[in-house]
Amino acid sequence: MKNKPWDGRFSQNTDGMVERFTSSIDVDKTLYASDIEGSIAHLAMMAHEGIITEDEAEILSEGLKRVKGQIEEGEFVYSDALEDIHMHIESALGDVVGDVAKKLHTGRSRNDQVALDIRIYLKEETRAVMDSLLALQRVIVKTAHRHMGVVMPGYTHMQRAQPVLFSHHLMAYYEMFKRDGQRFEDSLKRTDVMPLGSAALAGTTFPLNRELTRKLLGFAAISDNSMDAVSDRDFAMEFISHAAICMIHFSRLSEEFVLWSSSEFGFITISDAFTTGSSIMPQKKNPDVSELVRGKSGRVVGNLMAIMTIMKSLPLCYNRDMQEDKEPLFDTVNTLRASIDIYTRMIPNIAIHGKTMEDAANKGFLNATDMADYLTMKGMPFREAHSVAGRAVAFALARGVELLDLSIDEMQKFSALIEKDIVDFLTTKNMVSRRLTHGGTAHDRVREAIAKAAVELNMELE
Amino acid sequence: MKNKPWDGRFSQNTDGMVERFTSSIDVDKTLYASDIEGSIAHLAMMAHEGIITEDEAEILSEGLKRVKGQIEEGEFVYSDALEDIHMHIESALGDVVGDVAKKLHTGRSRNDQVALDIRIYLKEETRAVMDSLLALQRVIVKTAHRHMGVVMPGYTHMQRAQPVLFSHHLMAYYEMFKRDGQRFEDSLKRTDVMPLGSAALAGTTFPLNRELTRKLLGFAAISDNSMDAVSDRDFAMEFISHAAICMIHFSRLSEEFVLWSSSEFGFITISDAFTTGSSIMPQKKNPDVSELVRGKSGRVVGNLMAIMTIMKSLPLCYNRDMQEDKEPLFDTVNTLRASIDIYTRMIPNIAIHGKTMEDAANKGFLNATDMADYLTMKGMPFREAHSVAGRAVAFALARGVELLDLSIDEMQKFSALIEKDIVDFLTTKNMVSRRLTHGGTAHDRVREAIAKAAVELNMELE
Amino acid sequence: MKNKPWDGRFSQNTDGMVERFTSSIDVDKTLYASDIEGSIAHLAMMAHEGIITEDEAEILSEGLKRVKGQIEEGEFVYSDALEDIHMHIESALGDVVGDVAKKLHTGRSRNDQVALDIRIYLKEETRAVMDSLLALQRVIVKTAHRHMGVVMPGYTHMQRAQPVLFSHHLMAYYEMFKRDGQRFEDSLKRTDVMPLGSAALAGTTFPLNRELTRKLLGFAAISDNSMDAVSDRDFAMEFISHAAICMIHFSRLSEEFVLWSSSEFGFITISDAFTTGSSIMPQKKNPDVSELVRGKSGRVVGNLMAIMTIMKSLPLCYNRDMQEDKEPLFDTVNTLRASIDIYTRMIPNIAIHGKTMEDAANKGFLNATDMADYLTMKGMPFREAHSVAGRAVAFALARGVELLDLSIDEMQKFSALIEKDIVDFLTTKNMVSRRLTHGGTAHDRVREAIAKAAVELNMELE
Amino acid sequence: MKNKPWDGRFSQNTDGMVERFTSSIDVDKTLYASDIEGSIAHLAMMAHEGIITEDEAEILSEGLKRVKGQIEEGEFVYSDALEDIHMHIESALGDVVGDVAKKLHTGRSRNDQVALDIRIYLKEETRAVMDSLLALQRVIVKTAHRHMGVVMPGYTHMQRAQPVLFSHHLMAYYEMFKRDGQRFEDSLKRTDVMPLGSAALAGTTFPLNRELTRKLLGFAAISDNSMDAVSDRDFAMEFISHAAICMIHFSRLSEEFVLWSSSEFGFITISDAFTTGSSIMPQKKNPDVSELVRGKSGRVVGNLMAIMTIMKSLPLCYNRDMQEDKEPLFDTVNTLRASIDIYTRMIPNIAIHGKTMEDAANKGFLNATDMADYLTMKGMPFREAHSVAGRAVAFALARGVELLDLSIDEMQKFSALIEKDIVDFLTTKNMVSRRLTHGGTAHDRVREAIAKAAVELNMELE
Repeated sequence: MKNKPWDGRFSQNTDGMVERFTSSIDVDKTLYASDIEGSIAHLAMMAHEGIITEDEAEILSEGLKRVKGQIEEGEFVYSDALEDIHMHIESALGDVVGDVAKKLHTGRSRNDQVALDIRIYLKEETRAVMDSLLALQRVIVKTAHRHMGVVMPGYTHMQRAQPVLFSHHLMAYYEMFKRDGQRFEDSLKRTDVMPLGSAALAGTTFPLNRELTRKLLGFAAISDNSMDAVSDRDFAMEFISHAAICMIHFSRLSEEFVLWSSSEFGFITISDAFTTGSSIMPQKKNPDVSELVRGKSGRVVGNLMAIMTIMKSLPLCYNRDMQEDKEPLFDTVNTLRASIDIYTRMIPNIAIHGKTMEDAANKGFLNATDMADYLTMKGMPFREAHSVAGRAVAFALARGVELLDLSIDEMQKFSALIEKDIVDFLTTKNMVSRRLTHGGTAHDRVREAIAKAAVELNMELE
Repeated sequence: MKNKPWDGRFSQNTDGMVERFTSSIDVDKTLYASDIEGSIAHLAMMAHEGIITEDEAEILSEGLKRVKGQIEEGEFVYSDALEDIHMHIESALGDVVGDVAKKLHTGRSRNDQVALDIRIYLKEETRAVMDSLLALQRVIVKTAHRHMGVVMPGYTHMQRAQPVLFSHHLMAYYEMFKRDGQRFEDSLKRTDVMPLGSAALAGTTFPLNRELTRKLLGFAAISDNSMDAVSDRDFAMEFISHAAICMIHFSRLSEEFVLWSSSEFGFITISDAFTTGSSIMPQKKNPDVSELVRGKSGRVVGNLMAIMTIMKSLPLCYNRDMQEDKEPLFDTVNTLRASIDIYTRMIPNIAIHGKTMEDAANKGFLNATDMADYLTMKGMPFREAHSVAGRAVAFALARGVELLDLSIDEMQKFSALIEKDIVDFLTTKNMVSRRLTHGGTAHDRVREAIAKAAVELNMELE
Repeated sequence: MKNKPWDGRFSQNTDGMVERFTSSIDVDKTLYASDIEGSIAHLAMMAHEGIITEDEAEILSEGLKRVKGQIEEGEFVYSDALEDIHMHIESALGDVVGDVAKKLHTGRSRNDQVALDIRIYLKEETRAVMDSLLALQRVIVKTAHRHMGVVMPGYTHMQRAQPVLFSHHLMAYYEMFKRDGQRFEDSLKRTDVMPLGSAALAGTTFPLNRELTRKLLGFAAISDNSMDAVSDRDFAMEFISHAAICMIHFSRLSEEFVLWSSSEFGFITISDAFTTGSSIMPQKKNPDVSELVRGKSGRVVGNLMAIMTIMKSLPLCYNRDMQEDKEPLFDTVNTLRASIDIYTRMIPNIAIHGKTMEDAANKGFLNATDMADYLTMKGMPFREAHSVAGRAVAFALARGVELLDLSIDEMQKFSALIEKDIVDFLTTKNMVSRRLTHGGTAHDRVREAIAKAAVELNMELE
Repeated sequence: MKNKPWDGRFSQNTDGMVERFTSSIDVDKTLYASDIEGSIAHLAMMAHEGIITEDEAEILSEGLKRVKGQIEEGEFVYSDALEDIHMHIESALGDVVGDVAKKLHTGRSRNDQVALDIRIYLKEETRAVMDSLLALQRVIVKTAHRHMGVVMPGYTHMQRAQPVLFSHHLMAYYEMFKRDGQRFEDSLKRTDVMPLGSAALAGTTFPLNRELTRKLLGFAAISDNSMDAVSDRDFAMEFISHAAICMIHFSRLSEEFVLWSSSEFGFITISDAFTTGSSIMPQKKNPDVSELVRGKSGRVVGNLMAIMTIMKSLPLCYNRDMQEDKEPLFDTVNTLRASIDIYTRMIPNIAIHGKTMEDAANKGFLNATDMADYLTMKGMPFREAHSVAGRAVAFALARGVELLDLSIDEMQKFSALIEKDIVDFLTTKNMVSRRLTHGGTAHDRVREAIAKAAVELNMELE
């Protein structure tokens, strides 16, 4: 009747519904490779310290590799009764190597084992995220470089504000994703800590060499407090929180791509391969990828709220609630990586309509600020100049024209300081060129920014 | 090269990564039965209105039933290229009945189709939730009835406050789950609205008889605005929000069960069949079910935040972001139902340690309020009586005893109003019996509450 | 040294930092009127039951009214040492009526008192919200009525999809706000329950007549379990959750108003009185109100997350954590009411540019669906007709024209079924008129919807 | 009629309700000092570059200092009509120095100005948080040092698991708060970036020396993209997210303090000065501070949700939604700082009941793991030893005794390997001492951990 590794004191079998309810195997099988990697290092360390023999370590390690092979070849049978991936592997190991399998669990507990497995998994995934963010940044920089010179309206409050270079706008996202990469680099430091040897909560009586395990697994440090080591899920909360910020960046970029590919904007066309149509409306070409990524930002924010609510108010040390940490974490990793990859692939497949953008920049009084600047330059205080330009805008608006459609005579009614040179002063191109402060949209500044980014990314600009 | 139901204007195939990224089939296959049910009603209505022939309706309906059979027997092959469950079924229908399958989609769009499918699904699930909540309430009432008379400490701030009946405490959860049921009943009204006929967003030119479709599908009403009908996910947000409140109730009950089954409290023992042990600590018997349910409350709160973030700021009408509504909804339904069911099954498997509870109620000065009441009864203003009782507590505390361990002489030092009758007045049982206000913990009141609940639940008390 | 109503057993004064940290007076002073209203009813009931004399009740009630006057005239001094509004009022009452003030607290506790106060407050605010939602709906219906006949593009995926009436689009929001009103009506039932008499947690030994208190305060019911009554904050969670859904509706409407008032759309102009400008860009006229309301949806979603996290895992009964319920609730009430009111006032101040909307509806192939419908009507299966229309769109797109810019000859290359009558069939107005299903955008249907709404709102259409 | 700094093109005054609705002065007045500090640096830079004269800079700076004085002395009148703190200060400056005040706004916009102000504020607050976290860590280390040697039960699943040192348990929180400090140090790098000179969104035509402004304000770097600089609120999201993790740590510590101060645990007594009582129950002494901090973790998680929802899907650049960033940020700063400070002050005021803790550690079979270890040491495989110990526990449990209450004879019935030396082996103290792995609970290890922490904190242990 008894069959659990912990049922010595139990007189009843586990209820079937309970087995299903408490089983985590559907989710934590993701950790199989990390689990086996951790076990092999644990064995090597124990052999080195004489806790088990070299032969035992050899047999068990080879057995674990065979189990890994079974899993990867799809031959593995999962069962709720075996609860989690750790018990599955240990049980399969028993089938492969016999009774000696029981030695694998010496000096460790599922509490420090699962903490180790998640950290191995998350270190690898964090690095993959950082790499793919770099690939995305390269695509952004290349696109900014290719379209250098295209002018578009810059917006505030979704109203046309001042003309900017399209490349400048795009490079704003370079900055965002760069910060994302830095955040992941920072959180990686706190993930890169080896918890094995903390056992259930108090450390263990076996003479483990934790420093050796660390070295074998390539961790940067070992944990300093066993109770913290098995209770801590900061690394998961921190990763998901950084992922949420990154997904919010994607939601902003997606919002812009959705708007820009509308009939109203017409700034870009996403290629057929990255859009879908409608089963009922033949003309539709929808920016589904951007919409979905925007929606998925909600998913990751939800994951963050889930893990924070889960961890809230848990007393030390391990509580079973913490089993629920994995799904939000794994889902976040998968969602984030898929979003980065699909954007990296999609951006080069977007046609930029420079002429439409520039036409838009020429309409909507984007030169009103510069008219005020012009008057200031000629000696009028800025606040007054702002008011003059505002009145000129109101006048032109009522006539349904732009400022440059007014004659010099008409303009001079607003201020005698206005002369012919204002026409050249207020062209879109000249307005862009004059914004020369560091970080500004002037061509020279944007070229510098692109060149600097190329150096940071170690890439060549064609 | 072309193969999508919408690619007339497209000159490039969909990118493979995009197909995987935008596919929802892994998630929305849950809706297969609702989808087929909706289609069959749509066909019957169209035949009735002469939009298709009775023969066509017959062939298509039979075909859909065969497709349903294939899905339920596991013979169905899913593919990302077919995007979602709707396209899968339509494509399989084509394999079964040939070209006439194309008539199925007459006068409808995936936008109103998916809105219908989710509503059919959610109506059924909401009713199932309501039923299972009733079953849980019955178990609670039965348990309260069985242990009528057991006294335990009531807590505020996790400090022993006043003695209460265990049954009274349990019946507080009856109230909570009753309110949950009412909330689901309320939201069901807003789910029970039939959207089909709204088409893509504007209604359709086909002379659909929406009232007939409604009747065939057993909906209470039809939607009044086609644009709202395809944009609305209120019903999902509302369901998840009610589920989150219900899960918060479970988190509170779980917290109490975890505490009560600790060595420190020792109030209950959960049977072996509903607990698990430790692979390293032989003595452990952990309240895993309660811990997991407590953790899963975080999951549902996360789902709520996900769907709200997804819906925020979406312009009308359908946007692809809304594809992300399904996973939080389905996961919430599954989590909530599993939590209700496991608790319904577990509660009768919990041993109640009435003696330990009562011992606890006898320690910790839970009779201090009644000492003040006693003095008030004898004429002292309450605020003063409170202060006298407070000083008596401090005195007893310093001596390491309870109030009733003091002699009458000792007590009289705090107030001359104290007489022998205080001893009987301050027993735990009498204190409970005196709280006779409606809703109070007195035995009579609790018996009434249990009887009233039994009537509401249409159940017999043994 | 001692000065707290509970310090009989205490030998040390409260730390000053603790007084500031635990004080809630800055927030809960909002409840002063509810608190006094509740107290006066409690006194009347106690006098009726002979627990206090009629004279005492009179003196105390008059005293409370004077305290209320002091608060409303700004003469009241608040102090962290008095913790909360309940203690402030009781203390002020003592100053006004002397020692008899101590009788006010007979048979109640701050636990049931605060539960009562919040419920009184929330009932009133819920009704105010419901009323103001009706006012908003009236403004929506009026605006839809006034602009009846204006055609605009309907969107899915932010791409022009099919032409719709502007009034139809607006009426989608009528439906949303109507559901919001229903939700508040539903939650009001659960708020409208009188908790007083539950005392600290177990009921009280005083012979309170809870039914009488209920009647005096105009509640619909009394609570049935004292422990639930002081532990329950469902009503706050439910209100905030409904408010969050309502704010999400506002975020969608705001998103649309922001887009529509952009240069790219140009569909509406919000009047100067409801926009602001830029200190640097003279031409700017920003839709600040809509942006702010959109942002404030985040605030309310945050409040929902806060209260759910606060309540998660709290054991019964009252815990001090629950003091943190008030700020999210009050802030939600204020934010929601301000958002409803400002929109009700702003909508009539928006100019609708019907011509621009209609021009937009005439561009972007919004008639492609109807071209497919046309072919279907002439006998072609829909899926094939869809494909033909798709190819025609691609052809026209390549030429930079709309479908109706093609000659009949050119169209006939795509299908011989096309005849002259297609021109009339594909006009925007006719397309709208044909969508006659209930809830569709046809003029007749929208007029009906407006008329029905006017009846529901008991309003006259001019 | 006109009075706004931006109303040149406006023909209507702002609606009064709109002024109230859009005003942020109640919240952003917090930024007054940062705003003035930023302005003075801007003036100095402009004078250095010859954009304004040295005299003008002098007059304006002195004027700003006078305005600062007015604010700090409470003489300042706030008004919704002046919108925000920036306009208030500029307007007050005009009153003080006259027309030259208009020069202050040269080359900047409210968009880069507010970004600068928040960063100045947040840098300072982040450093204050880091300092106060260090103070808290010192109190933790001191307390761990003072109570070195006290044994208590370590828990998993809220069940007694293995004995640990109280100091070891406490030092787990040292680790958590240390990681919190590291996180704030990391986010500070990204806050420490100077945005001024980005102007409204595109940079400015004035020849600003941004590098000089940076130096004057003590920032580490300047922003590289003007559009990002005014759109970015990552630093706020990141700070709040780190704060939420830190508050979750506090919620865990608070949960433990609440439990430990219950009658059931009795592990600690919080001093009177840090607890409050009940107005109705004279014996109550509630751990309010811990409860409130636990509740406030919900508040900060809510703030995180709010700011993420606000930022989701915002197109570049500044949108008015972003005005809503301040309240969640400021509230988070205040809540976090208050929580850290009150805990720093409270911890030394907690009495530790070592005897009660140790008694608890001696009950509940915490030596079962070590019994299994004992048998393993004598040659039995661990899994078998675990089972033997489990059966011994079940046997003792049935008799109502602990393992060490069994005679050697009785024990030997479970395994002949058991000898007399088991008695000494299973004492609580010896069990603790044997857990010698790095990070384990053995006395030597904990002493090392305390000593290491003292070095990190640069503190002396008495």
